[in-house]
Amino acid sequence: MEKYAIGLDFGTLSGRAVLVRVSNGEQIASASMDYPHGVMDQFLPCGKRLPVDWALQHPQDYLDVLYTVIPQVVDESGVNPKDIIALGVDFTCSTAFPAFKDGTPLCFLPEYQENPHAYVKLWKHHGPQEYANRITQAALEQNQQWLNNYGGRVSSEWSIPKIWELLEEAPDIYEKMDHWIEAGDWMVWLLTGNRTLSLCNAGYKIFYNQKTGYPSEDFFASLNPKLRHVMKEKYDAPMIYLGERAGFVTEEMAKKLHLHPGVSVAAANIDAAVCTPAVGIDRPGVMLGILGTSAVHLVNGTEERQVPGMCGVVENGLIPGFYGYEAGQSCLGDHFAWLVKNCCPKEYYEKAREEGVSIHEYLTRLASRLAPGESGLIALDWWNGNRSVLVDWDLEGMMLGMTLQTTCEEMYRALIEATAYGARMIVENYRENGVPVDSFIASGGISQKNPMMMQIYADVLNMPIRIAGSAQGPALGAAIFGTVSAGSELGGYDDVITGARKMGQVKNLVYTPIPEHVAVYEKLFREYRILHDYFGRGANDVMKRIKEIKKQAR
Amino acid sequence: MEKYAIGLDFGTLSGRAVLVRVSNGEQIASASMDYPHGVMDQFLPCGKRLPVDWALQHPQDYLDVLYTVIPQVVDESGVNPKDIIALGVDFTCSTAFPAFKDGTPLCFLPEYQENPHAYVKLWKHHGPQEYANRITQAALEQNQQWLNNYGGRVSSEWSIPKIWELLEEAPDIYEKMDHWIEAGDWMVWLLTGNRTLSLCNAGYKIFYNQKTGYPSEDFFASLNPKLRHVMKEKYDAPMIYLGERAGFVTEEMAKKLHLHPGVSVAAANIDAAVCTPAVGIDRPGVMLGILGTSAVHLVNGTEERQVPGMCGVVENGLIPGFYGYEAGQSCLGDHFAWLVKNCCPKEYYEKAREEGVSIHEYLTRLASRLAPGESGLIALDWWNGNRSVLVDWDLEGMMLGMTLQTTCEEMYRALIEATAYGARMIVENYRENGVPVDSFIASGGISQKNPMMMQIYADVLNMPIRIAGSAQGPALGAAIFGTVSAGSELGGYDDVITGARKMGQVKNLVYTPIPEHVAVYEKLFREYRILHDYFGRGANDVMKRIKEIKKQAR
Repeated sequence: MEKYAIGLDFGTLSGRAVLVRVSNGEQIASASMDYPHGVMDQFLPCGKRLPVDWALQHPQDYLDVLYTVIPQVVDESGVNPKDIIALGVDFTCSTAFPAFKDGTPLCFLPEYQENPHAYVKLWKHHGPQEYANRITQAALEQNQQWLNNYGGRVSSEWSIPKIWELLEEAPDIYEKMDHWIEAGDWMVWLLTGNRTLSLCNAGYKIFYNQKTGYPSEDFFASLNPKLRHVMKEKYDAPMIYLGERAGFVTEEMAKKLHLHPGVSVAAANIDAAVCTPAVGIDRPGVMLGILGTSAVHLVNGTEERQVPGMCGVVENGLIPGFYGYEAGQSCLGDHFAWLVKNCCPKEYYEKAREEGVSIHEYLTRLASRLAPGESGLIALDWWNGNRSVLVDWDLEGMMLGMTLQTTCEEMYRALIEATAYGARMIVENYRENGVPVDSFIASGGISQKNPMMMQIYADVLNMPIRIAGSAQGPALGAAIFGTVSAGSELGGYDDVITGARKMGQVKNLVYTPIPEHVAVYEKLFREYRILHDYFGRGANDVMKRIKEIKKQAR
Repeated sequence: MEKYAIGLDFGTLSGRAVLVRVSNGEQIASASMDYPHGVMDQFLPCGKRLPVDWALQHPQDYLDVLYTVIPQVVDESGVNPKDIIALGVDFTCSTAFPAFKDGTPLCFLPEYQENPHAYVKLWKHHGPQEYANRITQAALEQNQQWLNNYGGRVSSEWSIPKIWELLEEAPDIYEKMDHWIEAGDWMVWLLTGNRTLSLCNAGYKIFYNQKTGYPSEDFFASLNPKLRHVMKEKYDAPMIYLGERAGFVTEEMAKKLHLHPGVSVAAANIDAAVCTPAVGIDRPGVMLGILGTSAVHLVNGTEERQVPGMCGVVENGLIPGFYGYEAGQSCLGDHFAWLVKNCCPKEYYEKAREEGVSIHEYLTRLASRLAPGESGLIALDWWNGNRSVLVDWDLEGMMLGMTLQTTCEEMYRALIEATAYGARMIVENYRENGVPVDSFIASGGISQKNPMMMQIYADVLNMPIRIAGSAQGPALGAAIFGTVSAGSELGGYDDVITGARKMGQVKNLVYTPIPEHVAVYEKLFREYRILHDYFGRGANDVMKRIKEIKKQAR
C-alpha cells in the first residue's frame, strides 16, 4: 500500500503544506496561505509604531496556516488519512517568542498586546545588533572557541542576541515568560504535545555544539549576571536530532487537521537546512544554493573546520553523519526587485506590458543578449549588507563602470553577476579553509525562473549547476524528515540519506560552464575580489563612515 | 548716440546672435538656429557609417546660421545699422577642418563628400585618441616643457592630434588642403576677408606659447617626418590677440547680413573662454564655472604656473594682462540626463506630468528635501571620463552606498554632489599649485535653472556663488570682445577689463555657504577624494581593465 507524508513549511511571508508519495517524493497536493499580519516592520496591530530595523510576526498567523493548509492537502489529495504516516515541519530561524509553560504566546494576552517584545521576533529582526556586537566582543576577549564555529562573528539574527535584547529592554516579559521558544519547536509541540528543542535550531542559532554544549554560564553571566542560567531557565527541553521523532500527532490535533492520530512528527528543522535531502544530496562536497530574495549556501563536510565568515557548522546539522556548513548572502533577488522599482525606464514597463511579460522577464531577455563583460560594469552585491564571508551588515552596495551609454539591462545583469561573484567568494572561502565543494545544486524561486542567471552562475562558479526538481523544496524536505521519523516499521525510511535518495527531486537539466565565459568571468571575479577586500576588509571603511554621516543627517 | 554690438556664438548643437547695448550690455534682440546636420556621430549625409568615437559637423550649417541669425537680430532690434559698431565671434574649439586657400571647405566639393575626413572635426571628436596618447608619450620622452602648460597630458580634443589623424588616415586630403583651420577663425575670415589665427585658439588648442612659440619642428618630425613643417604649411596666419581687430565686415557680407560695412570684427574666441568678461570678471582669483552638459572652469592668475591636470594656461588667454587658466569636467548635466533616461521610476514621470513640471524639476524638488549626507551615497562623476584634474577618458562612473531603501532622488542628488566635489578637486588643485581662487561665478544653463544645485555648490566649495546675469553668456562675451575691437574712437572700449565692467552681467543673487552643510560636505569630500585618488591615480585601475574586457566582448 502506498504511503504518504506531509511537509509543513513556514516561510517569511507565507506557510504551505505539501503531501507527497513516500516511495518517490512525488507531490500529490499542495496548499499555501499568506500570513494575515505579514511582516510587522512598521506598526503593531494596535497601531503602535516600531523602531527601525525591527521585524515581528504574529503567532496567530502560524495557527491560521496550520489549520488551513493541512486539512486542505489531505482533503484535496483524496488519500486515505490512514496512509499518511508522517509529518515534518520547517520554519525560519531564529524566529522565536516568549511563551508560558502551556505554550501560550505572551502576545495572546490582552495586557501584552501593545508591547512589541511580546511578539515573535522574526529571523530578520535586526533590533539587537548592538547586543550581537557585544557578544562578539565578549567572546573575542574571553577567547571563546565556539565563536569560530560561527565564522568569528555573531549575527543579530540569532537567538542569544534576541533574548538578551528582551532582558535589557523588556525585563518584565523576560521574567514572566517560561520559555523563549523557536517557532518551529513550538509548532512541533502543538502537534505532538511534546516540547523539544531541535538540534538544528540549537546548533545553528543558539551556539550549541554536540561535543562542548552551550557556552559556559560564566560567559552568559559576563554579558549580564541575569543571563547566567538562561539556558536552564528559558531554553531547556529534550534535544532531538534531525529525522528523530518528536512524537505523534495528538488526537485532538489529528481531528482538527483531518489526520489519523498515528502520524509521526519529526524534530523541527530550519527552512534552509531542510532543503538538502529535497534535492537528493547524500554526500559531502555538493553545495546547495537556495536562491530567493536572499540566499543560503549549504554543504556537508567530513570534518569540523573553522571557516571565517560562515554562519555556522553543526555536527549532524544537515544530514546525520556529516558536519553541516551554512553560509549566506543577505540580499539576492532583492537587488533585482530594487532595480526594477527604482532604476528602470518607463519605456521598459510599457514594452513588457505590450509583450505580455513581466518586467523581470523583459529585462532578462535584454540582458541575455549581452556577452560576459560587455556591460563594462562591476558591482558589489551588498545592498543589504554582507552575511558571508564578511558578516558585516554595515556594508553597502557599489556599482562601477557606468558611462553615458550604460543601460538598465546592463545594470540588471551586473547585479546578477555580482551575486554570482558573492557566491563564488563563499565557495572559495570554503575551499581555502579545507571544506571541499565540487558541485552545485540551485533551489529556491530564482532557480526555477531564470535560466540566464543559472548559466551565469555556472560560468562564474565554473561548476555544472543542477536545479531542484520541486518548487517546494523546504516543504518536500520537511516531508522527508517526517518520513524518516516514521521509520521503516511505519512505512517510512530509517535514515535521511535513504530518504534523500528515494524522495529528493532534481530536474533533468544541467547548466554547464561555457569555457569562453568562464575565462572572462575569471578576470572579472579577480576585480570583484579586489574591490570586495578593499571595501569589505578595512582598507577603506568609507561605507561605514558615510552610513554614520547618514544616521546623523536623519 | 547709443551704440550696439553683436555677439555671434557657435555652440555644439546650434548657433545664436545677440545684439546688445554697448553702454551697459543690455540685450536688445537675440536669435538662434539649430544646425541642420547637428552632430554627425553615426552617419555622413551620404549615409556612410562613421567609426565609434567620431563626431563631425557640416560647415554649411555655420553659413546657414550666419545668414539667418544676424539679419534677424538686426531687423528685430529696430536699431539703425549705422549704430552697430562691432561684432565678435566665438566657437567651440578645437573644431577644425581642411580648407582650400580661398576658404572653401574640402567637403563642399563633390569628390570629397563621402570622405569623413573632409568634414569638420568637432571638439568632441575622440577618433584621434591614439595620436593624443602618442603625442603625450613623445613629449614626455623628449622632456618637452610645453606639456606642463597643458596639465601634463594631451587631449584628443585638441588640434594637433586631429591634424595628425588626418595625415595618417587621409594623406590625400592632408596634401590637398591649404589650411587646417579652426571654424572660429574661418568665420572671422568670411566676415572680414582676412585670414587670422586667434591667440586664444592657438594658445589653448595648438600648444602655442607667447614666450616660446610652438613646439619645435624636430618635435613634430619625431611624430611623423611629414609633420616637420606642419605649422608653416597648414596653420600659418597672422596671430591676433583677444579683443584685437581682425578687420571690418566686407561690403558684400554687410549687405547679406543687413549690416553697415564699418562694423569692426574681433579675433575669434573660444565659446568657454569668451564668457569671462560676460560676467564682469576683471581680476584674478574669480573662477567662472560654465555649467552645462559638461563644465569649464576658468580663472585668471598673475603668474604662469604649471598645474597638473589643467587643460591649459595661456598668457592673455582670457583677459589681456593675465594668465588664463582652463580646466573642465567632461560630464556634468549629462549625468542627470542619463539618470532620468535610464534610472528613474515611471511613477515619477507620471507625478511630474500631473504636477505640470519637468522630470528634472520634480526630482530636484524631492532631492532638495534631503539634508546633506542623508542619501548615504557617494559617487564619482566620471560617466564621460575625467578631464580635470586626472585627464583620463578611460575613467568611468561609480556610485557607492546603495541599500534596498535607496531612491532615485537620492541618486540624483548624489550625482549633483559628485559634480560639485569634482569642481572642488579643480579648485583645490589650483590652490595647491599656486593659483589662488577666492570666489566663484556660475554661468551656463544649469546656473540659471537649478537653485538647489547652486546651493550645493556653495556648500561644497565653501565659497559664495554668484550667477551670470545673461543666459547667453558666450554671445554677450563675444559682443564685448567685438566692442573692444572697435575701440573708443568708434564708440566702443579700449580694453577688455573696461568692457567687462561696463557690459558684464551678474544677477543680484548670491548663494552663501551654510555652515552646517559645509561641515558635512567637508567630511564627504574627504571620502570623495580618497575614492578619486584610489580609482583615478593608479592604486586600482579596475576601470581601465574592465573597459578593456568590455572592448574585447564587443
